Amino acid sequence: MSEYDAVIVGAGILGLATAYHIKRENPNDRILVIDKLNAAGQANTAKSACAFRCLFSSRTNYLLANSSIEFYRHVQKNLKVDLKLNFIGYLWLLCEREYEELNPVLKDVAQRGFSYKEYDKQELAEKLPIRTNLEEDEEAKIMGLENIYKGIFIPKAGIVDADCLVRFYEEEFLKMGGEIHYGVEAEKLMVEAREPLGIPGEPYFWQESRIAGVNTNKGMVKAKKTILAAGVWITKFLDELGIECYIKPKKRQIFPIEAKTPELERLLFVKSFSKEGCMPFTILPKFRILIRPFPTEHTFWIGYADDFPRAYKLEENPQPEKNFYEYGIYQILVKYFPQFKDRRPTAPWAGQYAINTLDGQPVIFEEN
Amino acid sequence: MSEYDAVIVGAGILGLATAYHIKRENPNDRILVIDKLNAAGQANTAKSACAFRCLFSSRTNYLLANSSIEFYRHVQKNLKVDLKLNFIGYLWLLCEREYEELNPVLKDVAQRGFSYKEYDKQELAEKLPIRTNLEEDEEAKIMGLENIYKGIFIPKAGIVDADCLVRFYEEEFLKMGGEIHYGVEAEKLMVEAREPLGIPGEPYFWQESRIAGVNTNKGMVKAKKTILAAGVWITKFLDELGIECYIKPKKRQIFPIEAKTPELERLLFVKSFSKEGCMPFTILPKFRILIRPFPTEHTFWIGYADDFPRAYKLEENPQPEKNFYEYGIYQILVKYFPQFKDRRPTAPWAGQYAINTLDGQPVIFEEN
Repeated sequence: MSEYDAVIVGAGILGLATAYHIKRENPNDRILVIDKLNAAGQANTAKSACAFRCLFSSRTNYLLANSSIEFYRHVQKNLKVDLKLNFIGYLWLLCEREYEELNPVLKDVAQRGFSYKEYDKQELAEKLPIRTNLEEDEEAKIMGLENIYKGIFIPKAGIVDADCLVRFYEEEFLKMGGEIHYGVEAEKLMVEAREPLGIPGEPYFWQESRIAGVNTNKGMVKAKKTILAAGVWITKFLDELGIECYIKPKKRQIFPIEAKTPELERLLFVKSFSKEGCMPFTILPKFRILIRPFPTEHTFWIGYADDFPRAYKLEENPQPEKNFYEYGIYQILVKYFPQFKDRRPTAPWAGQYAINTLDGQPVIFEEN
Repeated sequence: MSEYDAVIVGAGILGLATAYHIKRENPNDRILVIDKLNAAGQANTAKSACAFRCLFSSRTNYLLANSSIEFYRHVQKNLKVDLKLNFIGYLWLLCEREYEELNPVLKDVAQRGFSYKEYDKQELAEKLPIRTNLEEDEEAKIMGLENIYKGIFIPKAGIVDADCLVRFYEEEFLKMGGEIHYGVEAEKLMVEAREPLGIPGEPYFWQESRIAGVNTNKGMVKAKKTILAAGVWITKFLDELGIECYIKPKKRQIFPIEAKTPELERLLFVKSFSKEGCMPFTILPKFRILIRPFPTEHTFWIGYADDFPRAYKLEENPQPEKNFYEYGIYQILVKYFPQFKDRRPTAPWAGQYAINTLDGQPVIFEEN
């Protein structure tokens, strides 16, 4: 059993990006990626909404997202690898309360050189078009929906093709001499005492010990560093060692709607936000339903991530629920965008989202 | 199906104490306690180390512990219910680093009127006796054990009989007209929309909803308030609703050692700490092995709660492990207390401990 410099559990987008960057910085290191599936990016990466943005309230997440975007741009522009990168921007539609809450964050990130545009409700109604005032709507009142007060548009944001990105990282990592073993399932992290004494059941709590690699269904992999990039499955590995990572899985369902009517066509190819001539990735107020335009497919993806009272549940292969669209998402969507009235989704799918429960961020939490 | 004012899941010490105090404050309320087992305090309450102390670094935990102790004293002294309350005190044995860390906490709690005594290592060696200096010991060095620098003695602390306490709460609660249903297993919390609309699968995320009681293996229990006092099992209920409670289970094993030699007898009935004439509940440095004297049984309970690399694992009926004492606890214990050399535990047992992972406290965490 030879020892790697690093083993990375998970060949999703985060695992492969990590592998690529470590290998690039340390060309002589032996880096191994393992994944239980038979190809890259087949688990939740394949089920993501494939959008990116640089607005995060925490500094770490902002820096991480911003440098990732710069890197994607570099790959597409300088390395001539088509990631289907599309800077359509992000549009947060906010009710008054949300705007008051977000305002200090925006002021703060603006000082770091972050640029955004603010639209009032009249501008939004003209640009999109959208219904911003639901006051006369009895149903909307029962549902607790709120008027749209402002829109915040972030130009440095957009959509990408997760599969293109995954393939780029995989190919480059392999070219540099990185190793990937597919069909290898990590079962448990290996822990060993720094100074083994040969006593039964070691390491004991009084022994200084370290994570020494991974036990897999194909044998042990020893490594100097073990990196978990297994998304929602990370908790499973860490709970086994009594390490808390504050990660919980959220199910996210995505429902594609084809832009088959002139009204939806017009909404999809709205000209007034970016030079891409496409509707931005849009977040509705309060419940944060997302609308991810897919201009090349003439489709919108409508998505939502679980919230109370839906379970934190680790599912191997989560499935979309028809009623979740029909009585959940749809009811809210048509109040703001009546263009979607009576449109039914085609081929929906579901994935999982690893959120940390300390600040609700999907990426990295920051402790005070 | 009638509705209770409150349903409490779990008839352990926390569930019954909660039931008792709510009922006392609200004599006309219908309060129900349910428990999957057939009597009170049979799960982890029965497996606790049955000690109490009022030293906690957080203000909430301090107030909670302190008022509990006052209440126990009142029950034993004024209500003449024998809880086998014994103010033998708590003795924290600290290495230099731990003392430096604890010192500001002690200064802080002292300002709230909390009293404690500080002993230096010479005093400790004479009073107990204990080995405070392990510098010449090669094995101790390999194990990373540290010299004892100071001892902090807390008089307002000691031991109690958990079963007596549980029976007191149970009897008084029943006398006031409280209800307890044993052999009823809570399966899931019930959630309902505040304004049900009769749509399939409600409540949806956009509906304002509330926890409306508990589904059990014997049917539904509706209640205005639902209180989880299920210890390590709480997470299971909350995960199902997407609520994070930051609780993880830790296994704790307890190994009783009989005080059969004159040296152990002398240690157990040490006179110099409290008027009880008994060794205090003692915590060893660094790894925090606990020694809980049981003077009426002429026994010490030696205990330890899991730490890295032992799993966070929810066990229905955890069992003690022989090697955990032999190669884990014992090795450290005899370095400080050679009196325990070659003594073997009789009838060990294991339980679980619900710790919150934010500040490691067993009771309540405080957010900044």
